[in-house]
Amino acid sequence: MKSRRTFCAVVMICSIAAGAPAQTPTRARDLGVPFEGDPGPLNAITDVSGLEVGHTTILREEGPVRTGVTAVLPRGRMSQVGVFANWFALNGNGEMTGTTWVSDRGILKGPVLITNTYSVGAVHEAAIAWAEANLGFRAWTLPMVAETWDGFLNDITGFHVRRQHVFAALDSARAGPVEEGSVGGGTGMRTFEFKSGIGTASRRVGTGGADYTVGVLVQSNFGRRPQLKIAGVPVGREIPDLLPENPPLSEAGPPAPRGGRDGSIIIVAATDAPLLPHQLKRLARRASLGLGRLGSISMNGSGDIFVAFSTANGEAVANESGEAPLRMLANSDLNPLFEGVVQATEEAIVNSMVAARDMTGVNGRRIYAIPHERLREILGRYDRLEAATPD
Amino acid sequence: MKSRRTFCAVVMICSIAAGAPAQTPTRARDLGVPFEGDPGPLNAITDVSGLEVGHTTILREEGPVRTGVTAVLPRGRMSQVGVFANWFALNGNGEMTGTTWVSDRGILKGPVLITNTYSVGAVHEAAIAWAEANLGFRAWTLPMVAETWDGFLNDITGFHVRRQHVFAALDSARAGPVEEGSVGGGTGMRTFEFKSGIGTASRRVGTGGADYTVGVLVQSNFGRRPQLKIAGVPVGREIPDLLPENPPLSEAGPPAPRGGRDGSIIIVAATDAPLLPHQLKRLARRASLGLGRLGSISMNGSGDIFVAFSTANGEAVANESGEAPLRMLANSDLNPLFEGVVQATEEAIVNSMVAARDMTGVNGRRIYAIPHERLREILGRYDRLEAATPD
Amino acid sequence: MKSRRTFCAVVMICSIAAGAPAQTPTRARDLGVPFEGDPGPLNAITDVSGLEVGHTTILREEGPVRTGVTAVLPRGRMSQVGVFANWFALNGNGEMTGTTWVSDRGILKGPVLITNTYSVGAVHEAAIAWAEANLGFRAWTLPMVAETWDGFLNDITGFHVRRQHVFAALDSARAGPVEEGSVGGGTGMRTFEFKSGIGTASRRVGTGGADYTVGVLVQSNFGRRPQLKIAGVPVGREIPDLLPENPPLSEAGPPAPRGGRDGSIIIVAATDAPLLPHQLKRLARRASLGLGRLGSISMNGSGDIFVAFSTANGEAVANESGEAPLRMLANSDLNPLFEGVVQATEEAIVNSMVAARDMTGVNGRRIYAIPHERLREILGRYDRLEAATPD
Amino acid sequence: MKSRRTFCAVVMICSIAAGAPAQTPTRARDLGVPFEGDPGPLNAITDVSGLEVGHTTILREEGPVRTGVTAVLPRGRMSQVGVFANWFALNGNGEMTGTTWVSDRGILKGPVLITNTYSVGAVHEAAIAWAEANLGFRAWTLPMVAETWDGFLNDITGFHVRRQHVFAALDSARAGPVEEGSVGGGTGMRTFEFKSGIGTASRRVGTGGADYTVGVLVQSNFGRRPQLKIAGVPVGREIPDLLPENPPLSEAGPPAPRGGRDGSIIIVAATDAPLLPHQLKRLARRASLGLGRLGSISMNGSGDIFVAFSTANGEAVANESGEAPLRMLANSDLNPLFEGVVQATEEAIVNSMVAARDMTGVNGRRIYAIPHERLREILGRYDRLEAATPD
Repeated sequence: MKSRRTFCAVVMICSIAAGAPAQTPTRARDLGVPFEGDPGPLNAITDVSGLEVGHTTILREEGPVRTGVTAVLPRGRMSQVGVFANWFALNGNGEMTGTTWVSDRGILKGPVLITNTYSVGAVHEAAIAWAEANLGFRAWTLPMVAETWDGFLNDITGFHVRRQHVFAALDSARAGPVEEGSVGGGTGMRTFEFKSGIGTASRRVGTGGADYTVGVLVQSNFGRRPQLKIAGVPVGREIPDLLPENPPLSEAGPPAPRGGRDGSIIIVAATDAPLLPHQLKRLARRASLGLGRLGSISMNGSGDIFVAFSTANGEAVANESGEAPLRMLANSDLNPLFEGVVQATEEAIVNSMVAARDMTGVNGRRIYAIPHERLREILGRYDRLEAATPD
Repeated sequence: MKSRRTFCAVVMICSIAAGAPAQTPTRARDLGVPFEGDPGPLNAITDVSGLEVGHTTILREEGPVRTGVTAVLPRGRMSQVGVFANWFALNGNGEMTGTTWVSDRGILKGPVLITNTYSVGAVHEAAIAWAEANLGFRAWTLPMVAETWDGFLNDITGFHVRRQHVFAALDSARAGPVEEGSVGGGTGMRTFEFKSGIGTASRRVGTGGADYTVGVLVQSNFGRRPQLKIAGVPVGREIPDLLPENPPLSEAGPPAPRGGRDGSIIIVAATDAPLLPHQLKRLARRASLGLGRLGSISMNGSGDIFVAFSTANGEAVANESGEAPLRMLANSDLNPLFEGVVQATEEAIVNSMVAARDMTGVNGRRIYAIPHERLREILGRYDRLEAATPD
Repeated sequence: MKSRRTFCAVVMICSIAAGAPAQTPTRARDLGVPFEGDPGPLNAITDVSGLEVGHTTILREEGPVRTGVTAVLPRGRMSQVGVFANWFALNGNGEMTGTTWVSDRGILKGPVLITNTYSVGAVHEAAIAWAEANLGFRAWTLPMVAETWDGFLNDITGFHVRRQHVFAALDSARAGPVEEGSVGGGTGMRTFEFKSGIGTASRRVGTGGADYTVGVLVQSNFGRRPQLKIAGVPVGREIPDLLPENPPLSEAGPPAPRGGRDGSIIIVAATDAPLLPHQLKRLARRASLGLGRLGSISMNGSGDIFVAFSTANGEAVANESGEAPLRMLANSDLNPLFEGVVQATEEAIVNSMVAARDMTGVNGRRIYAIPHERLREILGRYDRLEAATPD
Repeated sequence: MKSRRTFCAVVMICSIAAGAPAQTPTRARDLGVPFEGDPGPLNAITDVSGLEVGHTTILREEGPVRTGVTAVLPRGRMSQVGVFANWFALNGNGEMTGTTWVSDRGILKGPVLITNTYSVGAVHEAAIAWAEANLGFRAWTLPMVAETWDGFLNDITGFHVRRQHVFAALDSARAGPVEEGSVGGGTGMRTFEFKSGIGTASRRVGTGGADYTVGVLVQSNFGRRPQLKIAGVPVGREIPDLLPENPPLSEAGPPAPRGGRDGSIIIVAATDAPLLPHQLKRLARRASLGLGRLGSISMNGSGDIFVAFSTANGEAVANESGEAPLRMLANSDLNPLFEGVVQATEEAIVNSMVAARDMTGVNGRRIYAIPHERLREILGRYDRLEAATPD
């Protein structure tokens, strides 16, 4: 359906996006937003060793297209080994495929792919096709594809995410720093009515005599402005302006139905601690508490769905017959990991907003980024501004 | 990807499939298999008023292609009104999309679409596209697509189910008799190592002073031969021959991994009784007991996933603001409905086998239909043959 | 086991507790703690019409005994009619009996009874006995009894809650203001290492063209000091002193095992909005977000279990055969109710701390109440103190 | 409440019950009922090494009392080490305490105790007290107590199970043969309207290169006569007589409400295979399929609740800090264990009926045992009688 030229163009955009990130790469803690806990070296989900992230960002003025796909590969794109995993839906108005088998097998095989609501199907098929081509027969039969709704800015009914975009996200997945904001699946997203998208953070935690990493990546697209709290400060009430703009004349489609898909957040939590599937469900559930800190009420129209996995115990996960040895962290040692998920979720979401820039989309609709200086000023007024790393 | 000509060919095959069913339309009770309870007039899920079923069967010698898609539309294809619904996974090695929102909203909007494992994505996108084209913006944002694995007979990695096939299944959906056996999503399926596919049955039940209908449709693809019991008789042990044939020389791909996707059954239970979502979850769970009667152990590789819905209370389901009146059947009246689901599940699965014919597929592999006369002879030997309606 | 005299003494203490509440009846908003939303007239769960609450507080110097039982009766103690209900466990290290039938029936019949961990059994039997005596055969066969651990201050292995205490709590249940702090089941509890116990709050919400009430009652017993945030302010870090005192010489038993029952919160959310069981599960889940605002990470040793019910639709709930009419609020109207639960949970927990006073218990252990003036000073410093109603 | 003399009498009865089992110790396969699979040496749950079972049977003519308590101790009564466990409710009209923590911790600590519905509280308290006395502080804080309803034959409102009975069941728990029929918690129970109670069975399965045992114990109290199938034969329809007798003149209480607690089955599945909690949930769910074989429809009034545990990995379960090594059986090897649970559940239930004798209870009500010779005759007629081991 896409011509070869279009395909190349897309890849080009991806390359640019990957190679030349926005000019002022800013993260929340660089602005002086206070967070608890100790982040890993990258303060990103990729602090979990072996994990790779890839984005394909699709931006076209025809449409306009403001969408994409993000791939989180627990052991990297070429691994055939799954991870112990589990999931939780705080509010189910969304899609995350592959969950029934994760629940029963306790294992996620393949990536978590995140895109827009209407591209779940294309990404699902593409994931299977990529795995058949690169890893072999039946490599990923039940892929995990999740979504949030970007139809406010993006021409979502154009089904613009195609097979090549998914292949590009998978092929370009890398360890190292993770691009945040309006990239990949997060390209057209908004949070508390500010522009946002992808965000990430991590925590180093010591427990049970060892050190572990917890990393979180979010595709964030939820919330109403007055609900927003950052570091406990009612930032949303302090910035009642800069709301999304929806020029009435350019209204193309009918209004969205009441209670529609106007929110959602997908949260991926990764750890190298040797947790079993039932422990990972508990980890996934903790993301709720990070949302709570920011003021979320998990609205009816929101698909707040979380997946957690552990990269430990690969040998046992890969074992196909008989007994395999593995390791389990004691339940009594979980609190620091729980805390890490809560903290990293909170920070990843703020990062997803801070990294984004204003964006115009379908019908001239516009969503503003959270204004950095005003955020700093407000936090200072409530005595919550920390010494900021200069940009 | 498909040329227009191929598309026409497909539709032609569909038409043939729809217009000229197999020469000896046989159902289990026509052979004298004894079942409990009173079926509705069609002994099909379409005994639930307003419900429509459509199949697209894709049969091509190149591949070969032995697959398709089946659509169950609770209120018919043009309804914009959802149904109260809920779901249950007896074993999760499969996919049913849309479940998290069904769990939380209690409502299924749009059809249940059933296809092969690798076509979930194509069907998912097509469902959204069909609804956008026919019903309007955001009509079905989170479609329910389920699957079973037909890769033994079908060229599953060819991704042969495309948008037009889904459109054809939806456009051709009708009330009335439902074609069974190797049709629609069930085209390439097998049950207890006999050829099978789609099956259906229904029960009329009186409870709480009123009469209701329960209908079941299955896409059945599970089980090992020795497990099979029909009417309590160990039929599987009595027919140890006629096992699937897999000619060694023509082996195309690598062997399936151990514990692979070698089974699954999707069960759709519909009723016109006014049940609420939490009651429908109980209905869905009862399908397990029908499987138990047939000897299923719900194997590790099986995606045994069930959805139940009620066509009552449409006005309340459609209501978008404020309070709506509805009706609820007392919990104390549920037993006859539970029994109906168990009985109809049992019969629908046997129907899916009895209606099928021998089929040859990929690499010369062959699956045999259950031999009708031997089945009758065995049931007779165990004093379980009923007076049969002649074919 | 208890002599009649002891029984009278207990009742006497209860009467005193009920008749002569603490001298400075203070609630969080009286101190100027800012909260969102509009509370009902009592700012208590009893703002939900018909709902009754009863406490039995057991305080004895022999032991010492610092425990009790609290009864929340959705329709009052003499009603034979249940309520639509559902529940959610954010962390399951606790007990709430009766849940499997609530899940399947969608109905809670009888009260929610909350006590200490070791008194679940006595309260369970007493609840059945009270119902048999007062309401008739099989009135409550599967009572809902929940608990939190008070063994730090209370002689928990003495099993001091007996049948008469449960009867007293049920017999004394009333509408109207609800006593908070160290009363009833909350007598020996602590929150963020401050003394706490029972707390309550409510919200009036307008949605879908009507006004509804959401009320919350908590038995709060969770958290570590540094986690505590009130109105987003890191109050716990600002008050690192006043930690629980555990005199080493008086250590009676062995130390609690690591990861033991050192936390928990039971949250009861009630509403008069006509919600169905699946909607009430969503309401119950929102309590998590209120916990998140306060800094909870839902620790491994915590039983964070929530139940939500609706007092609407009594006629349908009571119906024992056939179809009954009922009403359902549209899902699209749920957001204000979700928000009400989050807000009322947050306030109820702070109320449970603000209402409590210092308490000494087993082995001279001591837990301090949160110091009101310091709390005001801290909130003021972070520009979060509201105009306070004078005590 | 009970005098010392009564207490002694009870113990005496218990001793007799334990020491002098019924005169004709008959099990289903001794009658020639055909079952699949290979049982362990005892064909009992105690074939799982280390597991102990204890019963206290309470029979008194005053009341009359026809009740008791059964204890299943996964590692024996003096072990302080838990077991990996999980649970499933096919129909939730019953009680099983302790489940939320089993779900989250993945571990069951202490026994499964099974009694009548109204004795859950007494057994719960007694379990904690026994553990405090015998194992130390906080040994079992959240015991697992399950129940079925024996109020047809037993004076259930008399609350006759007291602390000493629970202690006796725990103290007398042993490995070795398990008494079946009207003993322990099963004393007053009925199944398909025949007298029943406790039943057990086991299977030896080879999988993944090793041999494992699966054992099942049921307290069976469900079903209507016409539903009963044994070995697939409609035995219930063949024996329409011998229904429970309920003399009208002696009616003491009001009739049970419609949809009341007139059924239930608690199923305990144990294995020595090294399964993790999420795998054990799948094992628990398989009990449903055993019920399905017998004709169960899991009625509205039934509490069909199942728990499964593994005695492997004790060291890891006991570990309180840091990482512990453990072993996991590959998911691909689970099928034989699934099959074992289905088969052993089926046989244990039939055993619970075959071992029971006619019993008279409250108000002269009478329940008949299944007549052995008629059962053999019926099975023979349907060609399903196997060569029977003579009694």
